Amino acid sequence: MSDHLCKTLQRFLETVWNEGNIDAAPEFIADSYAIRHDPGDPWDGKVLDVEGFKNRLRISRTPFPDQRFDVEEMIPGDHRVAVSWRWRGIHIGDIPGLPATGETISMSGLTIYFFVNDKISGHWQVADRLGVMQQLTAAANG
Amino acid sequence: MSDHLCKTLQRFLETVWNEGNIDAAPEFIADSYAIRHDPGDPWDGKVLDVEGFKNRLRISRTPFPDQRFDVEEMIPGDHRVAVSWRWRGIHIGDIPGLPATGETISMSGLTIYFFVNDKISGHWQVADRLGVMQQLTAAANG
Repeated sequence: MSDHLCKTLQRFLETVWNEGNIDAAPEFIADSYAIRHDPGDPWDGKVLDVEGFKNRLRISRTPFPDQRFDVEEMIPGDHRVAVSWRWRGIHIGDIPGLPATGETISMSGLTIYFFVNDKISGHWQVADRLGVMQQLTAAANG
Repeated sequence: MSDHLCKTLQRFLETVWNEGNIDAAPEFIADSYAIRHDPGDPWDGKVLDVEGFKNRLRISRTPFPDQRFDVEEMIPGDHRVAVSWRWRGIHIGDIPGLPATGETISMSGLTIYFFVNDKISGHWQVADRLGVMQQLTAAANG
């Protein structure tokens, strides 16, 4: 079953986050998706329904429409999968306080995804947002 | 075997990092410890021998001598264990550019620990260092 969860998660990251196929989200996520911990994410601590999750995807992808997550390691557990990842995207849309810079920004992080009935029901995540802030500030000032 | 790795890791975090028993490090870590990825850590990308690891422990613990890691989740894999954690410490020693503030600082992060022959041979880690920076800056200015 664990391998099955890894395959679901890999397809979710590729289809929904990397390709931006937002309408495919309900295929992967549960009716209730809890963002248990994700410092800096505007939805940190919130529980989203499917429409709320799609809205988060839209808003998160807009400044970086070509963004992509590349998985470094996946460790499957019972109803959980841990993932280490690297992310990159070209900053072509405005972020509050940070107008588009046109620069390629990279980020790394790790996430534990939780599953209920083979669907993703939430996550606990930390990303290196100081690294992102340093790149965005350098780009804005350069 | 995986449960065994979790127990080793829990004892390592408690004994070496939380209690500060630096001389116990060789009981847990391999002769060669690779910091594969740890943005912001001064030893990011380096491979340390046991003395080098003990030196990193000493330097890292000095500004926050009462620091402690509390494990949120552990997911054991084959020769790997993923851990989500919360950390806190009272900032009573100077950090370059950040004199001691006396404030309690908290941080969260995730780590994948790698094992060779039941000993920890390295890690891939991301911590929320922007959160730490914001707390330290607020404390220095408050």
